[in-house]
Amino acid sequence: MTNQEKIKRLFELLSEQEAYARSIGKLNFDMLCCAPEEGMDQAAEDMAVLGKTYHSLTHAPEYENLILELHENSEGLTDLQKKMIEQRFESYEKGKNISAEFAYEMDVAFNKAYGKWLQAKKAEDFSLYRDSFASIIEYTKKAIDLREKKPEGYYNACLDDYEKGGNEEQLDAFFGALKERILPLMKEILSEGKKIREDFLSRPCPIPQQEAFSRYLLEVEGLRKTATVLMTTEHPFTDHYGPNDVRVTTHYFEENFVSNIFSTLHEGGHALFMQNEPAEFYEGFVADHMSNAMHETISRFYENLIGRSKEFIHFVYPKFKELGGETFADVSEEELYEAVNISRPDLIRTEADELTYSIHVMIRYEIEKEFMNGNITVDEIPELWNKKYEEYLGVKVPNDSEGCLQDVHWTGSFGYFPSYALGNAYGVQILRTMEKDFDVFGAVKEGKLDLVLGWLKEKVFSIASVTTPDEWIRAITGEPLNPNYYLDYLEEKYRSLYQLA
Amino acid sequence: MTNQEKIKRLFELLSEQEAYARSIGKLNFDMLCCAPEEGMDQAAEDMAVLGKTYHSLTHAPEYENLILELHENSEGLTDLQKKMIEQRFESYEKGKNISAEFAYEMDVAFNKAYGKWLQAKKAEDFSLYRDSFASIIEYTKKAIDLREKKPEGYYNACLDDYEKGGNEEQLDAFFGALKERILPLMKEILSEGKKIREDFLSRPCPIPQQEAFSRYLLEVEGLRKTATVLMTTEHPFTDHYGPNDVRVTTHYFEENFVSNIFSTLHEGGHALFMQNEPAEFYEGFVADHMSNAMHETISRFYENLIGRSKEFIHFVYPKFKELGGETFADVSEEELYEAVNISRPDLIRTEADELTYSIHVMIRYEIEKEFMNGNITVDEIPELWNKKYEEYLGVKVPNDSEGCLQDVHWTGSFGYFPSYALGNAYGVQILRTMEKDFDVFGAVKEGKLDLVLGWLKEKVFSIASVTTPDEWIRAITGEPLNPNYYLDYLEEKYRSLYQLA
Repeated sequence: MTNQEKIKRLFELLSEQEAYARSIGKLNFDMLCCAPEEGMDQAAEDMAVLGKTYHSLTHAPEYENLILELHENSEGLTDLQKKMIEQRFESYEKGKNISAEFAYEMDVAFNKAYGKWLQAKKAEDFSLYRDSFASIIEYTKKAIDLREKKPEGYYNACLDDYEKGGNEEQLDAFFGALKERILPLMKEILSEGKKIREDFLSRPCPIPQQEAFSRYLLEVEGLRKTATVLMTTEHPFTDHYGPNDVRVTTHYFEENFVSNIFSTLHEGGHALFMQNEPAEFYEGFVADHMSNAMHETISRFYENLIGRSKEFIHFVYPKFKELGGETFADVSEEELYEAVNISRPDLIRTEADELTYSIHVMIRYEIEKEFMNGNITVDEIPELWNKKYEEYLGVKVPNDSEGCLQDVHWTGSFGYFPSYALGNAYGVQILRTMEKDFDVFGAVKEGKLDLVLGWLKEKVFSIASVTTPDEWIRAITGEPLNPNYYLDYLEEKYRSLYQLA
Repeated sequence: MTNQEKIKRLFELLSEQEAYARSIGKLNFDMLCCAPEEGMDQAAEDMAVLGKTYHSLTHAPEYENLILELHENSEGLTDLQKKMIEQRFESYEKGKNISAEFAYEMDVAFNKAYGKWLQAKKAEDFSLYRDSFASIIEYTKKAIDLREKKPEGYYNACLDDYEKGGNEEQLDAFFGALKERILPLMKEILSEGKKIREDFLSRPCPIPQQEAFSRYLLEVEGLRKTATVLMTTEHPFTDHYGPNDVRVTTHYFEENFVSNIFSTLHEGGHALFMQNEPAEFYEGFVADHMSNAMHETISRFYENLIGRSKEFIHFVYPKFKELGGETFADVSEEELYEAVNISRPDLIRTEADELTYSIHVMIRYEIEKEFMNGNITVDEIPELWNKKYEEYLGVKVPNDSEGCLQDVHWTGSFGYFPSYALGNAYGVQILRTMEKDFDVFGAVKEGKLDLVLGWLKEKVFSIASVTTPDEWIRAITGEPLNPNYYLDYLEEKYRSLYQLA
């Protein structure tokens, strides 16, 4: 077999693998967005049955041999094909010792975790999730144990999975830098910041109006309507099944219309990334290999840097007035801008303002580190959570649903959270580069988000799946990650908003 | 291996098969209720990839041998186990010559048909569906050709699949009887019936109110809330993935609130059946083997015999007033009852009244017979459709979306339609038996639908999956199918409603 014949055969095998990956992904979507409560256990088991076939496809000797051979000798392969082989070889190495039986058991445990978490969250009772939680931590550790090559320490392995090259040392320094400037500013705002009008934020806003506004926002962001779906779930997320089927989810709260707006903008950012990698990435099986921090860079970029800007609020204000009708008739553009930027230490990460957001993330990072490295047990998580919320944010956590059960992430992934804070920092650094090429906020003010998307496609999406985070940010901005852009941005924005010296 | 050991192993294999069947079913649900337009082609192919595994499971030598051996020698098996073997043996015989390749191609063709139909229906352009339509008819015929034992004629084979023992001769007689009494009554109403108030039927009713009413109706019917989901789609249907995950779908029309009410009651009837077979049926792998006419018996029972009764309208009237608010303030209980029973020959089957409904079905029966038996080509369907609508119902079909493209059925099944008319007839025959046991409409008037459900569970659901339609109706009512109960019911109801002699 020539290398070209091998590639051809490999593509056939990958097509089949991806059909399974997409289908299992859709079944997971179904569990999160459609299935009734009583159907979840069966769904968890059924998905694991399909997972067995997926495991057998990714562990088939023919497939593994093709990867190993092409990894050993890549003569005549294009750069993209070499990258694809590299990515698959890496997955192969991580997964080669995971047996079908272990994968099945692990799948069942992870698939069932969501239902248990949902139950516990609704009942405000951590004990209902405790066993499931402990079990998926154990499976995560066991899966790491089975790897031949891995970084020192379980949490470092998790971090490296999500962010190639990432580790505790790097993140300790990163969060250290953030903490040093964010916490004092937060306190200054609390004691000396001007009062911002917020009475209208809790006015009831009917869900159909909110939904219409969401659809409008996704359109403004530039999503292809015939390839995008908007649905609701407990904890908003975005997923896709090829570039022609992207699913954005949100959660409407009748008495908190702002929540849905920024959640939709955020998820819409993920969706744009999923829909706009280069066509040859999809065709060549390298798409969707960006890191999570890259993904969060884009989602947080649309949510905050654009979405919470004066210029964006100016552009969407007429639509807001139209849909809000009488309810918001007395709210000026300036008041709306200020209100969606109110900074206040609070309980819920997804509702947090830009300034306090990374502190929420840091708390999760610090706790994950403890339980993944075995320094605390699962049972100690709620208490540690509450302690850290009091220490950093000065808030008392009234129950675990507003505490350590608030996020869906710990039903499936450990080491993901830092991506959000990294994304915040990458985002501002990229924005400053973008601004050298065109008047970004001039465009935003006129709703010309196609200019933003065009730039991101050309400079950012075009290389994400084929670079490490460090290669990526250097290629875009000419320097490594530098959190000062982000911290300067926060300082400037919030000092101006709160009229501080 | 003893027979008990064989059964044990067979159950393991069936569990795996059903995990696939449920998963593929959910992916189909996803295509109908969630997926964006551009995602449909990929979904169709992915489902067929999973279908390959399903095919290999149902055609695995180990599985086939177990079925054949236990069919040959069923010593020591319980009656239910024998029934299960009988059902699986029958499927085995029908499918044994269907190769993996043929199944895959057929799957792709059928899976793609839905997307094409939806496009054509939206565009009011039959030509967009024509090729897909022709292709799935061909595949259906080829699949029948591959069977060793089958009735004479393609359409007879389809009819027998849906209704064991059903054939053209029986259905010609059945529809002949219907036609003879329904058509003259229909004309009499048109010329001499009293005028019924209907101005309020097209008043705009916001979708959230309609949705709230749907949820209320499903609750009144007696569905388990934590095991039931309500969603929307183009053409309402119900499906389930085990008894703990039943999905009801509907379609809201802002200016036709009645449509959703009876669609929901109808689909809720299906859902009740799916949720309430005996536990040992689910455990023993015999559940869900009722015929389609049995299923339509229940759905039409709830939609019409209960749903459109004076007593049911009496019971739901307060809730209707509460949700309808100002819009329907001037509508009396009597007016509501009369309006939801207006009989008028029209274009759309799912919106048809009880009297004309079976005529819509008869038209489809007559056309299916023609194209399945090769007497007309696909291209001749729209014209024949329009001709028959004019002949029987006296209405001109303005476009194919309101004509032969209106129903989803011809994207997947031929021979299903007669089930609706049979269900209408079975339903009244069963109702007359039920009334011997308790005051059905006395209970309905008080909303005590648990009495109805209890009776159906005991007498109807308890034997459906393990009897032929003929055995079933005899066991319940003591006589074979007798359409006169249904025709007498129609005569009585509509003469009274329209004040005819």
